[in-house]
Amino acid sequence: METVKFLLPESQAPTTWYNVVPDLPGVLPAMLHPGTKEAVTAADLAPLFPEAVVEQELGAGREVEIPGAVLEVYRQWRPSPLVRARRLERELGTPARIYFKYEGVSPTGSHKANTAVPQAYYNRQAGVRRLVTETGAGQWGSSLAMACSYFGLECEVYMVRVSYDQKPYRRGLIETFGGSVHPSPSGRTAAGRAALAADPQASGSLGLAISEAVEVAAGSGGETKYALGSVLNHVLLHQTVIGLEALRQFELADDYPDVVIGAAGGGSNFGGLALPFLREQFAGGRRLRALAVEPTACPSLTEGRYEYDFGDSAGMTPLVKMHTLGRDFVPPRIHAGGLRYHGMSPVISHLKEQGVVTARAVGQRECFEAGVRFARCEGVVPAPESAHAVKAAIDEALECRETGEERVILFSLSGHGHFDMQAYLDHFAEEQE
Amino acid sequence: METVKFLLPESQAPTTWYNVVPDLPGVLPAMLHPGTKEAVTAADLAPLFPEAVVEQELGAGREVEIPGAVLEVYRQWRPSPLVRARRLERELGTPARIYFKYEGVSPTGSHKANTAVPQAYYNRQAGVRRLVTETGAGQWGSSLAMACSYFGLECEVYMVRVSYDQKPYRRGLIETFGGSVHPSPSGRTAAGRAALAADPQASGSLGLAISEAVEVAAGSGGETKYALGSVLNHVLLHQTVIGLEALRQFELADDYPDVVIGAAGGGSNFGGLALPFLREQFAGGRRLRALAVEPTACPSLTEGRYEYDFGDSAGMTPLVKMHTLGRDFVPPRIHAGGLRYHGMSPVISHLKEQGVVTARAVGQRECFEAGVRFARCEGVVPAPESAHAVKAAIDEALECRETGEERVILFSLSGHGHFDMQAYLDHFAEEQE
Repeated sequence: METVKFLLPESQAPTTWYNVVPDLPGVLPAMLHPGTKEAVTAADLAPLFPEAVVEQELGAGREVEIPGAVLEVYRQWRPSPLVRARRLERELGTPARIYFKYEGVSPTGSHKANTAVPQAYYNRQAGVRRLVTETGAGQWGSSLAMACSYFGLECEVYMVRVSYDQKPYRRGLIETFGGSVHPSPSGRTAAGRAALAADPQASGSLGLAISEAVEVAAGSGGETKYALGSVLNHVLLHQTVIGLEALRQFELADDYPDVVIGAAGGGSNFGGLALPFLREQFAGGRRLRALAVEPTACPSLTEGRYEYDFGDSAGMTPLVKMHTLGRDFVPPRIHAGGLRYHGMSPVISHLKEQGVVTARAVGQRECFEAGVRFARCEGVVPAPESAHAVKAAIDEALECRETGEERVILFSLSGHGHFDMQAYLDHFAEEQE
Repeated sequence: METVKFLLPESQAPTTWYNVVPDLPGVLPAMLHPGTKEAVTAADLAPLFPEAVVEQELGAGREVEIPGAVLEVYRQWRPSPLVRARRLERELGTPARIYFKYEGVSPTGSHKANTAVPQAYYNRQAGVRRLVTETGAGQWGSSLAMACSYFGLECEVYMVRVSYDQKPYRRGLIETFGGSVHPSPSGRTAAGRAALAADPQASGSLGLAISEAVEVAAGSGGETKYALGSVLNHVLLHQTVIGLEALRQFELADDYPDVVIGAAGGGSNFGGLALPFLREQFAGGRRLRALAVEPTACPSLTEGRYEYDFGDSAGMTPLVKMHTLGRDFVPPRIHAGGLRYHGMSPVISHLKEQGVVTARAVGQRECFEAGVRFARCEGVVPAPESAHAVKAAIDEALECRETGEERVILFSLSGHGHFDMQAYLDHFAEEQE
């Protein structure tokens, strides 16, 4: 019988993460202090992050050991499966081989748990009592709340208003883990109050929710730290566990991808899968295409400018060189709340500039159509974010139907859509109109 | 590092199901034709089920081969993990070792996919075009809809009204797979119309939804067959894949359960896990307790009478010897919709009579409390049904804290609660009152 799921034994699970920074072509522009315009120092970041995280952000080596306590948690659901989408291939009539790396098996149903667990762990080790963060659709907020409950930390989440209203069940999930949730903009911070003064009906944005969370941490006198769910180097670092596993799983499958695809909001899902494969390429191994997929409603990589900008809308974070739509950009209320971010990871942005990463933008409706098609073949209903990768993977496979090419396609199915069924119901209702 | 997740390689995955009937102590009372009161024949069941299913229902051997096409689907998410709940053990301060078999990794998030896939497959093989079924909370309906989409069958689901209203997202999931959903009682069948005439606000019951689905199949002239998600022998047979895997996983763990626990509505989740362990016991191997947990709101095993009754409320099915609250019993509107059934699997009922299986009933509130406690330790938010098993497992572990006994506890975490977050939100609201 043909294998459809490639499982890695625990004994072969990665015990280190991969830090791409030393291997990048060219030089990655440093984050700058907004006042001095000098490269940020560890001291600048200390009010926000514990020392171990700052070290990973500013200059880790290629290999970073995964702490034992983190591995113990990872091993509840990791290594995640690599699945050959045979029924989808048959449905598409394509000679392409389609694989997906499925992160929906985590307890919170998405890849966000991969970085939530180490971030909570390092904070706990540093004696921190409380973490504050932002969340879009809630994948990140619920994952951090879970990790905080594992390590005995309090957790406070600023959730983008539009998602807070659209996705009450992810909010319920955060509360089940003992976390507290505030819609953003909230009246609890200066950044939130300013936004509400400008527009009392503001739907919010990830950039603004970051401002609120950073403000709370910075003003806490040290007992509360901040945690970010994407964009930064240390987050991409933690997510490389996805691609490191996938590399080994492709050995089991005796195959290798020609193209690696991921949805990109802040870039950590895409980077987590793609970077370990790009490492092979940097080292002279097989070349592949690395394709980041973003929504046409928030096209930072495909239409943003590559320049220094703030990571948040209020301008409280360091300046980051990245593809950005401008920190004031408020994306439309699309369902893929995790992709509603004005900027992009500096590492992914740099790789795009260097021609190593390519990008395309796709529309909401075609993503849901692809998601439904995928679900009917493979059973998993993709989260709206992940559906962007599904759409791109299907397009690649259909191209192969025309050309006859046996392309090997790997995409990240970063999470299931069980919390996003209202989005699918809205899609069906729209189709009937 | 201590192993927390015991994975079975695909090469060791079961390729047969286990039929307990030949091994049962005593004689399992036959299903009776409601008119003649004679044992039902294959011909009696032919209007409802395809031949292969009828054969499995009425008299299969001990070992039934799993068809290759079913194995191919199973292998997307099976073998499911056996997980040692180390963080829960520490939180409880218990010397007990707690394991859970996690069925929430299936694409629909529950164990129901294990029988949905073979049922759809056998119908497809028999040339059937369309399946009709009932569902409570929607785990079964969504799993059958998924399986039908895999094998190109239409799928029509009668969903108990109270769940139809409480759980719109599981309904959305059925529709995503291309299935159609009607609230039950509906105006589409004589059974439904009679129920609506008696009470236009009727919240429905599994028994009534079964009547509606059976009526549709029986009146279809053969092109539509019926599928049932629990209770019957062939359903328990398919679910034994859970326990067969768990047995082998306990070998990997070098351990063996003293007690096996499962939530019981119709009995297939509980039986699926427990029966392969009981087989060892019947064959002279280690004895264990097999504990079925049901809601106090619907206590068929603990308070029902053991007698012949109809499987549905309108009296259209064969007569089944089982623990029953009476076919007219309409359970309160508890959140564990999958446990709102008036009867119990004849196999499980028989084993209870024989003293092989024990049962207890637990209340809704204590189940949610246990579910929240479990989630904060292990990350997985249990479905309200599964929370019944969690509650019983925690009680066993707390008993061991008192006695110092190193009891080995295995329970079935039959599904995640990602579609049931409203139930958790309601629970939190009640707690605040």
